[in-house]
Amino acid sequence: MGDVIDGFRFAGLSCGIKKTGRPDLALIVADRPVPAAAVFTTNRVVAAPVITSRAAIGERAGVRAVIVNSGNANACTGEQGLADARATVTAVANALDCRPEQVLVCSTGVIGAPLPVDRITGALPKALDGLRAEGLPAFAEAIMTTDTRPKLRRAEAEIDGRRVRVAGAAKGAGMIHPNMATMLAFVVTDAPVDPDALDLAWHRVCHRTFNAITIDGDTSTNDTAIVLASGEGEPFTGPALDALTALLESVAGELARDIVRDAEGGTKLVALTVAAAASHADAAAAAEAIATSPLVKTALHGEDPNWGRIIAAVGRSGAAFDADKLALSIGEVRIYGDGRWQGPDAEAKAHAIMKAPEFGIRVELGGGDAERTLYTCDFGVDYVRINADYRS
Amino acid sequence: MGDVIDGFRFAGLSCGIKKTGRPDLALIVADRPVPAAAVFTTNRVVAAPVITSRAAIGERAGVRAVIVNSGNANACTGEQGLADARATVTAVANALDCRPEQVLVCSTGVIGAPLPVDRITGALPKALDGLRAEGLPAFAEAIMTTDTRPKLRRAEAEIDGRRVRVAGAAKGAGMIHPNMATMLAFVVTDAPVDPDALDLAWHRVCHRTFNAITIDGDTSTNDTAIVLASGEGEPFTGPALDALTALLESVAGELARDIVRDAEGGTKLVALTVAAAASHADAAAAAEAIATSPLVKTALHGEDPNWGRIIAAVGRSGAAFDADKLALSIGEVRIYGDGRWQGPDAEAKAHAIMKAPEFGIRVELGGGDAERTLYTCDFGVDYVRINADYRS
Repeated sequence: MGDVIDGFRFAGLSCGIKKTGRPDLALIVADRPVPAAAVFTTNRVVAAPVITSRAAIGERAGVRAVIVNSGNANACTGEQGLADARATVTAVANALDCRPEQVLVCSTGVIGAPLPVDRITGALPKALDGLRAEGLPAFAEAIMTTDTRPKLRRAEAEIDGRRVRVAGAAKGAGMIHPNMATMLAFVVTDAPVDPDALDLAWHRVCHRTFNAITIDGDTSTNDTAIVLASGEGEPFTGPALDALTALLESVAGELARDIVRDAEGGTKLVALTVAAAASHADAAAAAEAIATSPLVKTALHGEDPNWGRIIAAVGRSGAAFDADKLALSIGEVRIYGDGRWQGPDAEAKAHAIMKAPEFGIRVELGGGDAERTLYTCDFGVDYVRINADYRS
Repeated sequence: MGDVIDGFRFAGLSCGIKKTGRPDLALIVADRPVPAAAVFTTNRVVAAPVITSRAAIGERAGVRAVIVNSGNANACTGEQGLADARATVTAVANALDCRPEQVLVCSTGVIGAPLPVDRITGALPKALDGLRAEGLPAFAEAIMTTDTRPKLRRAEAEIDGRRVRVAGAAKGAGMIHPNMATMLAFVVTDAPVDPDALDLAWHRVCHRTFNAITIDGDTSTNDTAIVLASGEGEPFTGPALDALTALLESVAGELARDIVRDAEGGTKLVALTVAAAASHADAAAAAEAIATSPLVKTALHGEDPNWGRIIAAVGRSGAAFDADKLALSIGEVRIYGDGRWQGPDAEAKAHAIMKAPEFGIRVELGGGDAERTLYTCDFGVDYVRINADYRS
């Protein structure tokens, strides 16, 4: 089974949080405490499980387990929510005979409602029984909320004379009925790496993957991306560490793009690169303004190479640019350059490229060599339909 | 006629820029050079008429005329665009026997296309012939692009023993097929005021009116709001100046709200106040994050009191807040307070309030006494339909 990563077992099952009876409890267990790293939401409103897991990761005690429930986000639940997150962690730690700071917890689903923690702890024996080395697909299914399909990716490579495997699962993104959805991502590898190196590598990877996607510009209170590494022996350093980082990025990048591909109401995956910027901050500001502009996103939906909206977004972003060198390409077709529209032929070609479900847009600010790539989607009528529905 | 303001005449007519034959050339002429102030777009991509008018206002030579064309924005048109804007100004200055820096020019419509300046200068004699003291409605009609109705407001008051009249016209906003629309606003008064005082008053007014509205978070390359004051005699100072500022704000505020009421695809006008903030910057950041969130705006469309999305937007904004004091009201109904949801009864009442076409939302951050009010609209299915249409 291709998704087996030595040192880890996975489970996914139903514990009765979701009214539909679909799987809503997911578990990863490592055979021993392993190096782990995590990136959490930057939203200042953070859910109880984020508070708990952030503190646990900070302890650097190694991680034995990650427990995830879907159907309830345990967010905006006050002191009771924190107590519930801690009760979940304690139950897992007791069952595995490890310390609570070696257990991470994530939740996704409805916010504001109390977590039915008894259902989670009640189903825990069954979850532990269900742990399988080949259980990642079941895990991926149990973390879903409005996702239309599970998101699973894997990669492997020869690094420093040993076979290294990386596998991961994620769920999106796209804020949802009845409240908000969360991006959760879990990546495991059998590479040997020390905790500090893993932490730095994971932050770099997340910057270019999970933190480079935007559905609607909103962030959730629960967003979490976790990596665990089970490999024993001499930890990777230097080029081997770089190779591992690239392998992690390939899996994380595909998972991140899978989230955009499955965005609520979205029909296009667009890789937007802002290049030739004077600074990384300029590139990032311009890319974010373009990628989150409702006008740009509706134009993407209409397959409309509307350079005016993209350039107006650059202008609004505050990024420095040289108006005479500003350039814009869709796919390989330059439709704006030297401060001017490149004519109807270029525009017709760009329109044809935009009919594809996935394509790239490149904007050059003409002032340096910094760049930033974001992955975004279009806004279709379905986005409004899904998100304007009154919760009932 | 209620819209007569001593010292000004107005005209609106067709000069052949719009293919539909609708009015597309508008003119205000003052009997003599009068104090003027203007606020322009903050977008770094600025159209030729903004460059020209900003320089003219900077000369402080008094203003004799404002000429406006609709149907063509003269934006992203390079050196030729600047020459065309200057040619327009020169033609008006020659006709009125005044200096070019006493003439302001505005354009709105398609971007990237050359301005048919000959049609403007060719129609100028007819425009001058058509100037009428009661011509503001014709002016208001000729500045429209996708607006569904002209926007005209007036007010008057007794200030310092004299009758003071204020009238104005505006056009929206909402970025549009085929490219982007512009917010233009023109307010005239017969009050006596010196240029510096008018400039300061107008910037304060625009901050609370034209710069407090958001349709989709995008700004245009052409946005301009101009005020002209024709009154002679001792300029207003102190309380009289404050009273004039309030009168200007009442007219500018209604015009600004009219723009939101007429937003493309929008069906609700929502006055969003973020209060009890530690600083004005905090209040503004939180208000902007909420008012431009696609998730909040689709919830407004669905008449859904979705406090989770609003609180998540506050969290994302970077504004400081006290989670235990965070409060949220829709109309007079508090649906979130003391860090908690206030229950289904409050939510049902809030849902009922949201059925109205206009209502208020108040968020209290619990950390000070700064506040900011923005006016926003909902995102409906029509917003996507209008903006995703391929230009043809």
